[in-house]
Amino acid sequence: MIKFYDAALSGNCHKVRMLLSMLQIPHEVVPISLPNMDHKTPAHIARNPLGTVPVIEDGDVVIYDSQAILVYLAAKHGGDQKDNLWLPGEPSEQALVQQWLSFAVNEIWNGPALARAFLLFDRDVDLARCQAAGKAALSILEGRLRQHDWLALDHPTIADIACYPYSALAEAGEISLAPYEAVRAWFKRIEALPGYVSMPGLGD
Amino acid sequence: MIKFYDAALSGNCHKVRMLLSMLQIPHEVVPISLPNMDHKTPAHIARNPLGTVPVIEDGDVVIYDSQAILVYLAAKHGGDQKDNLWLPGEPSEQALVQQWLSFAVNEIWNGPALARAFLLFDRDVDLARCQAAGKAALSILEGRLRQHDWLALDHPTIADIACYPYSALAEAGEISLAPYEAVRAWFKRIEALPGYVSMPGLGD
Repeated sequence: MIKFYDAALSGNCHKVRMLLSMLQIPHEVVPISLPNMDHKTPAHIARNPLGTVPVIEDGDVVIYDSQAILVYLAAKHGGDQKDNLWLPGEPSEQALVQQWLSFAVNEIWNGPALARAFLLFDRDVDLARCQAAGKAALSILEGRLRQHDWLALDHPTIADIACYPYSALAEAGEISLAPYEAVRAWFKRIEALPGYVSMPGLGD
Repeated sequence: MIKFYDAALSGNCHKVRMLLSMLQIPHEVVPISLPNMDHKTPAHIARNPLGTVPVIEDGDVVIYDSQAILVYLAAKHGGDQKDNLWLPGEPSEQALVQQWLSFAVNEIWNGPALARAFLLFDRDVDLARCQAAGKAALSILEGRLRQHDWLALDHPTIADIACYPYSALAEAGEISLAPYEAVRAWFKRIEALPGYVSMPGLGD
């Protein structure tokens, strides 16, 4: 069974929680306490040299980075490559999903996620820079979502899962979501998907 | 034919140049001048709301983000999903490639790439932070490459292409490569691949 190293307040872990639930994948949660620095122990560094969560182990397969874990779970459990809606195998569709996975990794992480980490966890970052980057990222999302229901394609994919948690948690980084009406409507669509699970700060 | 919007000194564009050459994909280069702000014109923002390069257009398909373009080119031209060495379709292999694509997007971009951008292009970033992040990223690469020839799998993939240019250009950000012997040996392996192309600051 998949072992999932999961820290409760991590939005990156929440991406994995959401897809595990939506695809109904059996798994065992191994709680990681960030205040206790469980993620910096030698045992965890052996799993993931970056010393971050989430990590999954599935037999001999060990994967870190939340986007990589979404790829793994969707590729293995989301249907075969021809009709895998979460991660399609057709080149242009796969690339459009990647475009938004990269957006989650850079623009969203270095924007709303790190602004929140500064305010909640005293992370050593420049708050004003993160907030400015966060507003820029939300504006890009807003531009896309004014014209489309989902980020990469005309249905939900792992791109939506990857971009959702830290965007929806932006106000924990003191970035107002008020100007981003289409983004807020997209949050509601995600929160209505079968198997959606919440975490503190997100919609029910 | 693929149109490739390419800025000469961009390491992100260089990833695309390398794979186009290695896979011998016919394409037309559309030069983008960053000093002239060609990447911020309305025409370019219509292609890519982030206002960055590279971008490719292939008929109706428009893709930005260098990792997404690598996914597109590898998925379309790298062989079918069962024997595509550049981007394998097997879930754990695909996920391991993604793990290092994410590393290119965050750790390498926000480390050596932005340190170089500060020194070469006056980009508004905190140089000391970027240099520290760059050293941390190079140490992670070194740890992997002391034990393995390639980043994701036992052969080159788009993960190697994505992580190579800005790592190999680290000294332009005043980050010494001297401590990273395995990383330097990996540069030589990449530079020996059929179809490798160079750019100013990289090996021949």
